[in-house]
This record gives sequence, C-alpha cells and structure tokens, in this order.
Amino acid sequence: MASTVTYSVTGMSCGHCEKSVSSEVSALPGVTEVAADAKAGTVTISSEAPLTDDQIRAAVDEAGYELVGRSV
Amino acid sequence: MASTVTYSVTGMSCGHCEKSVSSEVSALPGVTEVAADAKAGTVTISSEAPLTDDQIRAAVDEAGYELVGRSV
Repeated sequence: MASTVTYSVTGMSCGHCEKSVSSEVSALPGVTEVAADAKAGTVTISSEAPLTDDQIRAAVDEAGYELVGRSV
Repeated sequence: MASTVTYSVTGMSCGHCEKSVSSEVSALPGVTEVAADAKAGTVTISSEAPLTDDQIRAAVDEAGYELVGRSV
C-alpha cells in the first residue's frame, strides 16, 4: 500500500543539503517521490509500501544529517 | 609572481557550498590552492600569478554565490 510520511531532519542548510538527503532516500526500495525542505527541516517521502523509521534514519545518516522525528 | 588573496563571499551555508565555490575557483588558470570558509564567509585563493577581481567574481557567480569584497 502506498505511503507518504514526513520526517523532521536537522542540519540541512541549503539546496545542496536537500539534494544529498533526497539522493540517499530515493535509493531506498519503492520510493516514488522525495521532497526535502532545508528551511522547514523536513523530508516528505512517498513510497509504494511503507518504509521503517530505521530505513529512513539510515539514509539520512548516510547523507550526513540527523533524523529527529516523524510527523503524526 | 605568486599571489594569495582573501575575498568575502555571501550565501555559503555549508560544506557543499564551500566545495562548489572551491571547485569553480580552482578551475581558474594558475590557481594552486583555494580555501572556502562558509562560517567566515571567505574564500582565500593562492595562484601562480595574480588574478583579477572579475575572474574571481565570475567563478563565484558560476557557483551560485556573490563576491562582495576583497580583503586589504
């Protein structure tokens, strides 16, 4: 089932940062769309099936930023 | 004659920004070393022969940032 979730990410300061996070998250299985917003400190991820917080965290970590929350 | 000059650059906010500026400035003729510092808002450039402010400005513009001054 398709899923769209918004996470809070700290440390992104510019478009390059957004691109780094988007690139890593896009590499996760089934991801169809990623929108990173440095100013808002958020990453919104759409995927064919739900991903785990740990999968998202690993991708964000890999990009060099920190996952701090999941919107509810 | 070798030259080292520090310029003020606005808009750099992270390491990716520093890298973008360094990459463009490094492509100028005779450049031997570039140190971009986002926090300080400076780029220090060493070159085999002096470069013009316009050459530096063009490279910084190309990277997407603005050259605002030259230290004296």
